[in-house]
Formats: sequence, structure tokens, C-alpha cells
Amino acid sequence: MPAETMDELVSLCKRRGFIFPGSDIYGGLQGTYDYGPLGVELKNNLKAAWWKANVYERDDMEGLDASILTHRLVLRYSGHEATFSDPLVDNRVSKKRYRLDHLLKDQKPGVADAVAQALGLPDASNMSALVAALMADPEKAAEAMKAAKVIDPADGAPGDWTPPRPFNMMFKTTIGPVADEDSYGYLRPETAQGIFVNFKNVLDSTARRLPFGVAQIGKAFRNEITPRNFIFRVREFEQMEIEFFVKPGTDEEWHEKWLEARLQWWEAQGIPRAQIQVLDVPKEDLAHYSKRTFDLMYNFPTLGFEEIEGIANRSDYDLGSHTKAQGELGIQAKVMDNPDSTARLAVQDPETKAWFVPYVIEPSAGVDRGVLAVLSEAYTREQLEGGEERVVLKLKPHLAPIKVAVIPLAKNKEEITSYARELKARLQALGMGRVLYEDTGNIGKAYRRHDEVGTPFCVTVDYDTIGKSQDGSTTLQDTVTVRDRDTMMQERVHVKDLAQYLLERLR
Amino acid sequence: MPAETMDELVSLCKRRGFIFPGSDIYGGLQGTYDYGPLGVELKNNLKAAWWKANVYERDDMEGLDASILTHRLVLRYSGHEATFSDPLVDNRVSKKRYRLDHLLKDQKPGVADAVAQALGLPDASNMSALVAALMADPEKAAEAMKAAKVIDPADGAPGDWTPPRPFNMMFKTTIGPVADEDSYGYLRPETAQGIFVNFKNVLDSTARRLPFGVAQIGKAFRNEITPRNFIFRVREFEQMEIEFFVKPGTDEEWHEKWLEARLQWWEAQGIPRAQIQVLDVPKEDLAHYSKRTFDLMYNFPTLGFEEIEGIANRSDYDLGSHTKAQGELGIQAKVMDNPDSTARLAVQDPETKAWFVPYVIEPSAGVDRGVLAVLSEAYTREQLEGGEERVVLKLKPHLAPIKVAVIPLAKNKEEITSYARELKARLQALGMGRVLYEDTGNIGKAYRRHDEVGTPFCVTVDYDTIGKSQDGSTTLQDTVTVRDRDTMMQERVHVKDLAQYLLERLR
Repeated sequence: MPAETMDELVSLCKRRGFIFPGSDIYGGLQGTYDYGPLGVELKNNLKAAWWKANVYERDDMEGLDASILTHRLVLRYSGHEATFSDPLVDNRVSKKRYRLDHLLKDQKPGVADAVAQALGLPDASNMSALVAALMADPEKAAEAMKAAKVIDPADGAPGDWTPPRPFNMMFKTTIGPVADEDSYGYLRPETAQGIFVNFKNVLDSTARRLPFGVAQIGKAFRNEITPRNFIFRVREFEQMEIEFFVKPGTDEEWHEKWLEARLQWWEAQGIPRAQIQVLDVPKEDLAHYSKRTFDLMYNFPTLGFEEIEGIANRSDYDLGSHTKAQGELGIQAKVMDNPDSTARLAVQDPETKAWFVPYVIEPSAGVDRGVLAVLSEAYTREQLEGGEERVVLKLKPHLAPIKVAVIPLAKNKEEITSYARELKARLQALGMGRVLYEDTGNIGKAYRRHDEVGTPFCVTVDYDTIGKSQDGSTTLQDTVTVRDRDTMMQERVHVKDLAQYLLERLR
Repeated sequence: MPAETMDELVSLCKRRGFIFPGSDIYGGLQGTYDYGPLGVELKNNLKAAWWKANVYERDDMEGLDASILTHRLVLRYSGHEATFSDPLVDNRVSKKRYRLDHLLKDQKPGVADAVAQALGLPDASNMSALVAALMADPEKAAEAMKAAKVIDPADGAPGDWTPPRPFNMMFKTTIGPVADEDSYGYLRPETAQGIFVNFKNVLDSTARRLPFGVAQIGKAFRNEITPRNFIFRVREFEQMEIEFFVKPGTDEEWHEKWLEARLQWWEAQGIPRAQIQVLDVPKEDLAHYSKRTFDLMYNFPTLGFEEIEGIANRSDYDLGSHTKAQGELGIQAKVMDNPDSTARLAVQDPETKAWFVPYVIEPSAGVDRGVLAVLSEAYTREQLEGGEERVVLKLKPHLAPIKVAVIPLAKNKEEITSYARELKARLQALGMGRVLYEDTGNIGKAYRRHDEVGTPFCVTVDYDTIGKSQDGSTTLQDTVTVRDRDTMMQERVHVKDLAQYLLERLR
């Protein structure tokens, strides 16, 4: 039973230290977020699970970590300079700017349909078709929007709309001490390009042969016109991308294999297949480089089904765009002439010795969207006996920010606290992830707090543990109470068995 | 016996897939580097070791991961807009620009001394004093440099130097769709500020009391005038920073404690104390916010002693700069008036109930410089019996990019390769880090290659393993050869004992 509204999640995230708005104390920097003490653990755990499954547990993958600052030629030949844009429209009255499709989606029923009809479409149900029609005739678009009384959300009044135009989403910056025409570069809009331009470096240093992939996790930046929906549409985000290089002709089979592998992976992170719709992207909506794309759409609270991963068959577009000697390689995709590249991004057929450009299958997942989906799926409100309610994050143990909280029952009793501290250190040394020494508040509150952040186990050190039971017996000496997050059951476990007990249940 | 020259390291890094120049195929983007398949593992292992020691194994630390895009007010009140600059000088002839101190250091003996003497200093031995004098009188500086015939390295001729001026090192970019005066932000020049501005968020979500710290690992960006020395001085780099908040008056004691803790940590990464000089930074060279700073200087090949970490006592400058209600808090550092902050970045004394601003101790280490130091220290050339030489990276096992290579002796024998693949999968599941299925080249070459990248153990599956010894015996069935990187000794180990054997030696 996942979260019912996005607001529940946003509130939990801020209150419990998962995610804070960026530059918060100065009014915030729109589209940026900071991961707090628990968020950084959850995010790192999700990334580690991805790296383990995709790099360590496969025999056909290498890792990479390329720089964020990127040479402008990389993003010229990739096609981003020319085409990586969103449709932008201005209101001359309020001076506000909007992403055209977002603006139309946010109108009252009928308004977007009226715009669509003015452009000769039956209605606005196919938004990508509508945007294409508007961008193809910007003057007519402006008239239609004014006639349909498209409202500006900023002032609630119909806008005096300009003709829409493309707005390039890449962040640009000057690199080096001279600010002239040639000295700019970009913040990468995706991690993928860093893999393509290193294709030969990876081949030369590892002796890989097809099929093989390169995996990368890292930040990417897009200057969204209107960031929104919490960490869902932001200007700075993190990606987990694989570029899997295959022989042309085997690409469709690999594309299907990767779809299955990725659905399995999400399931292992606690997101059941029933919560993901696989969208086989219609031909007319495909990116120009894509032969076919599957979008994995997770059923977010409030937002509905939205993309958490795209798995694209990118054909030989990418390596074909960045290679030198394009004319000799029989490239099938339509690519820009590239007189600047210094590397041959191709391989030789072991039998025919002919050079060819590999096809690429790209499973590209969003870390932040993944975190949000995992949180949403784990979020549970439970009615307890006696009418009390609890919120519990039923995270898979490998994702939980804190694996075990060690709680001294009396925080002013030195024998108990030092026992608890030593126990914490010993459990920490098992290498399971974060173990917390927890000495704030009473035991019942500690349990609830750890339910709410998904800590699988609370271990309590009490008077019995140190051999000072009220009844004078010492039979419980060196035992602790272990409390299970999901069942709320408590068990008395001897400390010598504790490591094994926890390891078995946290795997 | 560490590396003798930087060139040895650079060459190994490129050849073996540790580090490549950024945007390589388009001529490179100066000051950026990409971590290859082995580099990303080494870097991630170093970061994980830092996080484990500083977040997991302490009971007074929280983690954080703030955004790179930063609100301009954060970097105004931090002092970066006004003072985060390097001294820049232009040659009117060649149109080249240089960092003044780098330019003077690169001159032939006597030239910088002549410049110093023209400014009334005895010589150029104190470069920071010389730069201060030149920046204080830019016109005189330009004359002195021309008179001393300071050479431009670009053309080898004396330059027509402009008066030097400060060049702000922050990368600026436009955020949002409107490019006007108010819509720019910065790429953070250090991760530290993300911690300071989240001080209250962390307090509110964790109920921490002094002393406690916040730890963060992440990218930072500085527009270096002249990036150089491989990954040592770059425009994009990664930091591991701790901001440790203490009660004023306890700061000096904590400063010393952190110095000791950090030296111990570097030692555990394979960098002996004898290779680190602790520089107690002279008062006149201290940053404006610093009460005292220790720089840890590692003895790099070719470069000599250069900083890998700075441990600063930053007083109450940082929280004092970013807090609201500055006037009520008795701030001791000299801070800019801040009418914009919306948060009180202070704590209450539990006894007197008086509010005060904590002092900050900041151990700030460079990830990339750390990687370079670790590589340098591990790099070993050994003369073997028979005159052969080998290069071996004697990395600590927890840092090694590949923990174990599993090698099938015959790569076309299905019984052997499938045995080896299964063994690889089983060893991988132990969670030690990357285990590689290695089937390229012959066994001797594989050993040498894994020596060179620091793989602690090679495990070979052969005919004996599958019970098909040449002599027909099956006594060696289910045993493998384990070869040790450092001793080059080989042992026959039963596969049922192998996990334990490796785990003990890799801890």
C-alpha cells in the first residue's frame, strides 16, 4: 500500500532528513534539492544496488565516471546543441515564461482542446502532436492561445502570449580565464555522452569485445523552464546509465533482454511489476536517434504514471556521430558530418575483418526518481490495535538508511551506555551499512521514529543485559531485545548470536 | 618505494584505464578528467573508506549530499564573490593569460627575485608575500615584470604584461529561462557551503547536540587559470569534507584531535606518516576565516610536497556569515551583514540558555589528490630473479579496483570456463567488491597485468580443478591455484575453503 499523496512524502522527507530544498535559507534555488542524513544513505544504497547488479554481477560490463564539464563539440555532434530544447512561451503582460506543454496541461478543461482545434487537430489528447503543430506555426499558435484565453497561472488572467520558440536546456559556462566565443562549455545534460566519447579508451584499456556495456552513475543538468513535482522534474539530478554495445542485427534481442533485466532489478528494490507500466513509445514520439524505446512508468502518488527509466535502442547513432572516418564505416543512422573527432569509434568483425559501428542499447534510470518511487512504495500507514496509527517505511533492508539502531534503555547509566556503544561498534564492523547509536527520547518514541525512516531492527540494551535485573537474576545477562520493524515483534537474543541473527535478516 | 616520476603514473593511468583526459577525442577540455573502469573503482573505494571511518564508525557525525548549483547569495555571504580569486596577468603580445604566481615560479632563476626587489622585498622566496605586494600596486607590478623580462612560456619571449588583477574562480551559469541580472547561480567551489546552509535542517531532523559533524563527498568546480600537474590542479574535482561543530573554547582541542584522526586515516589508506609533512600554516598565509590551519602535504613524485588535505579551524565565521539575527549572537569573526538569511544558525547553551554560534573544525580532503597519492605510494618497480622487472601496485586490499581475478586456464574448454564463471559469481556474492572473470591472454600475462592494477589475488581454474589431471588422479579436484600479488606465491586451495581464505586476507 504505497503513499497516497506526494505531499505525505515531501513532508516526511523534510521532517526526517531525507531531502531538503536547495539553498533553502535564501528562499531556495528552484529545481535543486539537498539530500539530508537519511536521504544520502538511501540514495547511496540505491546506487550501490545498481552498480552491484550491473557491473559486479555481470561479466560483460565496465564502469566509468566522466566529468560533468563537457567540451562543446561533444554536445554539438551528439545533437544536443541543435535539438535539446523545450518549447517556451512568454506572457507579455506578466513577463513570466512557461514550458508550452506544461502550460496547456494546467488549463481548465476545454482550453487546450480549443487551441488544438484552432490548429486543425481534433483535441488536445495527443499533447506531443499538439506541441509539434504549435511549434510548426508559431504565429498561429500565439493567436490560438490568445483566442482560447489560455490563463497565466501567475496572475490567473488570460495572457498576451508570444509565439512559442525552442529553449535549449543545457547550462552553459565559460571555461578558462578568457570569456570569448570559443571558451564556453556545457554541464552535461546526460551522462551518456561521457561513455560514447570514451569508447576507444575503454576498449584499449580492457580488451573487451562485443557485446559489452559501460555503466556510469553521475550528476546531469537540465535548465528546466518550470521545475516541479518535488525531485521529479529538477534542474540538477543524478542518472544511472548503461550503454550496451552490440552487433547490429542482435540489437532487438538485446533490447528485450535489457527490458526484462531492468524490470527484475526494480522489483528487487521493492517496486512490483504491477506498479510499472511499460510504454512502447509510439514511432512518432521517438527521439530522432531511437529505433525503439521502452519507458518504464511508475505509478507515483498524485502524479500518476511517470517515467523512472527509459530503455532505448539508439542504433549506431551515437558512436556514428562521434567517430572519425564516418564515410568508411557504413553508418546506418543519419548523423552530422564530423571532421573534428580524432578517434575511430568502431570495431572489427573478427571473421570478415570489416570495421563497423556497434549499435547501442541504453537503459537509463533516474536516481532521484528511483528514490522517490522506492520511498512511495515503502510508505505505509497502519492501523494498530487500540486505534493508534503508525507510519512505517517498509524499505528493502539493503536500501534502509539505517540498518540497526542500538538503544540504551537508560541514557544516564554508564554501564548501559558503554555496553550499547561497544555493541554498536561491533555491529558496525560487520559492514552492513549504517548502524546508529540512538539515545534520544524514550524507547517507544524511538521505535516509532525508526519505523518512519525504515530501520529494520532496533536493539535495546537494558538492565537485564548488564546483569542487573530488578529480580536479581542474571539469566538474561548479555541478551538484548531485538524489535522487528515490520512485525513489531520483540525477541530476546544473546549478543553472541546477534551478528548472525541480523546478517541473515538483512541480506 | 613510491613512483619516481609523475609521468610513470600518468602513463599507467591511461594504459590501464584508471584516468583519461576529459573530452579526449575532441582535443581535450583542459582541467577535466574521466575515471575509467579501474579508476572509478579505486575512487569509489577511497570514498567508501572515508565515509565508513567518518560517518559509520563515529557516533557524532551525519552525512549530507547537497546540490552543485548554488544560489548566488550563498556564495556572496560566504565571501566567495568578493575574495575567491586568483591573481591574473595578461601578455598584450601573445594574448595569453597566466596565474601570476605560477608564471613567476616558472621563470629562470633570478627573474622572480628581480621582480621582488623592484617591489622592495629581499627576494621571491616568500611567494605569497610577493603576490600580495604585486596586487597591492598593480601598475608598479606591470613595470617590474617588464623590467625583469618575465618570459611568456607560450612564445619564450619577454611579455608586455598588464597590471595583475583578481580573477574570480567560480563558474557562473544562468538558471531558468530568463537571462537577466538576477538569474545566475554558481557551481559550488567547495562542498562546505552546502553543509553550513543546511545546519538547521540537520539539527531539526536529527536532534544532534554539540559536538557533532556533518560529512559530505561531492564534486566542486574552480575555474583555474592554468590547470596542471595531471589530476592535481583541475577545474572539476571531488572533495571529502567534514564540518565539525564545537563549542567555542573547545575548538583548539578538537582541531588537534582531528589532525591526529586524519593522519591515522591516511595511514590506513597506505600513506605512511613519513610521507606527509604537516604544515602549520603561517599566520600571514591564513585564509581570512581561519584561526589556524594544518595542511597535510604529501610527497608527490616530480611535484614534491603538495596539499592533499587542509584541516582548518574556521572559528564562527561560516555559521555567523549565514545566520539571521547576527547582532544577537555574539559572533566573534568578522562577517558581512546578512539581511537575507531566513534561519538562525546557532544553538542554545543547555545550562545558560544563551544562544551562540558554534565554531567549525574543517578537515577537507581532495578525492582526486588522494587517488593520486595512493597510486603513487602503491606504485612499485621490482627486480625479479633472472633480471626481469615487474610493476606492481601494492594497494591496500580495500582500495584495490579488482579484489580477485578468476582465470580459466583454457578458455575454449567449456567445463573449465563454466566452472570458473560459477566460482566468480560465488566470490562476487561475498560482497568484497569487484571480482573479475578474466579470460584474456595467457596466465603469465594475466598475472603481470593484475600486478600492475593491484589485484590482490588471482584464482586459476585448471584441468585438476575439474578432476581431469593429466596423470588421471582426482586428488586435486575442486581445488584452485591462488596467487598472491605481493609475494607471487601460489597456493592450492580447496574451493570450499576459498571464501574464508580470501575474506581473511582482504579485510
